[in-house]
Amino acid sequence: MSTVNEDTATALDDADELASWRDEFVIVDPAVIYLDGNSLGMTPRRTVEALDRVVGSEWAGDLITSWWKHDWLDLPLVVGDELAPVVGAEPGEIVVHESTTVCLFQLVSAALDATVGRRGGVLAVSPSEFPTDRYVVGAVARGRTAEVIDDVDDVSRADVVVRSLVDYRTAALGDLAGDTARARAAAATIVWDLSHAAGVVEVDLTGAGVDYAAGCTYKFLNGGPGAPAFAYVRRDRQEELVQPIDGWFGQVEQFDMDAEFAPRPGVARLLNGTPGVLGLTAARAGISLTREAGIAAIAAKARRLASFTIDAAAGLGLDCVTARPPASSGGHVSIRHPRAAEAQQRLADRGVIVDKRDPDILRLGLSPLTTRFGDVWRGIRAIAEHT
Amino acid sequence: MSTVNEDTATALDDADELASWRDEFVIVDPAVIYLDGNSLGMTPRRTVEALDRVVGSEWAGDLITSWWKHDWLDLPLVVGDELAPVVGAEPGEIVVHESTTVCLFQLVSAALDATVGRRGGVLAVSPSEFPTDRYVVGAVARGRTAEVIDDVDDVSRADVVVRSLVDYRTAALGDLAGDTARARAAAATIVWDLSHAAGVVEVDLTGAGVDYAAGCTYKFLNGGPGAPAFAYVRRDRQEELVQPIDGWFGQVEQFDMDAEFAPRPGVARLLNGTPGVLGLTAARAGISLTREAGIAAIAAKARRLASFTIDAAAGLGLDCVTARPPASSGGHVSIRHPRAAEAQQRLADRGVIVDKRDPDILRLGLSPLTTRFGDVWRGIRAIAEHT
Repeated sequence: MSTVNEDTATALDDADELASWRDEFVIVDPAVIYLDGNSLGMTPRRTVEALDRVVGSEWAGDLITSWWKHDWLDLPLVVGDELAPVVGAEPGEIVVHESTTVCLFQLVSAALDATVGRRGGVLAVSPSEFPTDRYVVGAVARGRTAEVIDDVDDVSRADVVVRSLVDYRTAALGDLAGDTARARAAAATIVWDLSHAAGVVEVDLTGAGVDYAAGCTYKFLNGGPGAPAFAYVRRDRQEELVQPIDGWFGQVEQFDMDAEFAPRPGVARLLNGTPGVLGLTAARAGISLTREAGIAAIAAKARRLASFTIDAAAGLGLDCVTARPPASSGGHVSIRHPRAAEAQQRLADRGVIVDKRDPDILRLGLSPLTTRFGDVWRGIRAIAEHT
Repeated sequence: MSTVNEDTATALDDADELASWRDEFVIVDPAVIYLDGNSLGMTPRRTVEALDRVVGSEWAGDLITSWWKHDWLDLPLVVGDELAPVVGAEPGEIVVHESTTVCLFQLVSAALDATVGRRGGVLAVSPSEFPTDRYVVGAVARGRTAEVIDDVDDVSRADVVVRSLVDYRTAALGDLAGDTARARAAAATIVWDLSHAAGVVEVDLTGAGVDYAAGCTYKFLNGGPGAPAFAYVRRDRQEELVQPIDGWFGQVEQFDMDAEFAPRPGVARLLNGTPGVLGLTAARAGISLTREAGIAAIAAKARRLASFTIDAAAGLGLDCVTARPPASSGGHVSIRHPRAAEAQQRLADRGVIVDKRDPDILRLGLSPLTTRFGDVWRGIRAIAEHT
């Protein structure tokens, strides 16, 4: 274990090539140490400008004509194409819309329909998986009378497996390419949840041969509170895709109002209702920062931040749950604390914002575009003082 | 038929007690005659202020703590309660979230599950119904192997009927209480789509005994482009409700992360993913205008606007498709035009924004908080000149 201290933090911040990206964000109180950017990313300055433009000029000025004039109709696809390089996807493989829950529901249903019959409809999800993923699996199973099993490792038992690439508690990083290949060899399909990975880990959906993936944009992608989610379908699986919620934005000729439903070509068939333009505008602005800064540099800084956090915690006698990268994502580090809820509150009173997960986990979010090594050092020291 | 002219319009505007509400909206170009507020309501000034506050102060300043500090967690319910008096609902009967398509999907599925077995699963929707409603019915039927029939009038043949209270083309106004009672007497359930009614017609969901309803907030409620939709479930039907998309916001103890899914009490069980705070903020601001101005006064002005439009059109030899209120909603008036698409473009070039529906309908939106009788007169005259 290396010994780290405030000087180490300062030196790392001085050497940080991404340091100036923090200037792209709104800082209301410079004294606040924000270590929860993995739950809600900070507010990009350009988001404020983009919302001003879309509300004050497009909506207020061009009114209904904005749907065509400013390409609002295709915004879920436009933003999806802009997100694509961040997760190693191709243009035309991602839509940005609705919530992660709805995106997962669409993909899990579609994946089951595309594979059902092999094992009679078996869905696998881990009991320690993020709640919404487990709930969606349960809901799809209820609707389709499919079976749900706990075992996500023996992929030969399942038709469809739902799993997060990054564990929301421990930050453990899964094996995207390896697991995808093992599932394919066993004639199973994985629907990947990238919520805790997108924007902080180098994800190569194309290279890993991933079939379906979903994730959120309000964490490391700084898309805003409850920002729309994204859904990925590999191009060669799109034409077979039958998703469960048909709506007018997914119809091949949207304004041919009397037509029978026929899906749009490509990933656009995932669209259903009228897309939320304000949420998409903020998501787009947030995503643009990650794309411009480059996911490779961001992921490298995340790994350095996590290693530094683990070293600092160990040096101060704290019990880290999170393994050192690359076994963990770099996006957050969890520390065991006997009175996590109380500690979280007392830290907040001192201007140190961390997350907790009951009963005994403090979770420190490390968001490379905004988190400084000095923030981590001061945050860890404050935790040690409250332990 | 009364003869109306520019003087009539001026006199009606002078006598209009709602006239000053137009000052609550952002007017970028005062020369534009906007007759499409039934597709996208104009931008309330208070929406700009609300977004500035939520983005610049809540999100940027209070960061993740805003979910508790500013009640973001319950925003879909808070806005639902604020919308309730506008549609004659009680507090605790409405959520505002997702798109109309997703809300309809949730309600149609739940309604079918609550009634199935009576007729073996039969869904009824008219072939002239708005596309998304028909597509949702088709999608639910596909997922549940239910039957779809065209006949929405003989309710004794269906388990669940989906119908709009206001026809999106003709503005014909349905009989909410009468149809609901006839359906109940035949052991069928209607899922009402209030998209073209909410905020312009006096809807009394409680008085009419409605079971389920959904609608959008971006038309007469001025909630912004792609604003979140609403879903209504009468209180005494909530506890039996099983909706198809379980997610972590619909779980009884949301942050008890390892729990099995159990639905929240009440209408909150409709929630699924993380709600879009920006869209909800704009919807809330828009809805507040209608609530403050009062739906009775708004509906009365809508009827006057529609009657005036029909009179003006008749006086200039135009062919109105829309019947005089109360047979129509007052929210829009459709005029048959042999070259609707071309006329719409030429009107737009002159600063008159109307909607069209292929092949031969020009649709004039009448939004009582922003539309003046003078706008209608000048719009109708421009149409007559292009016919």
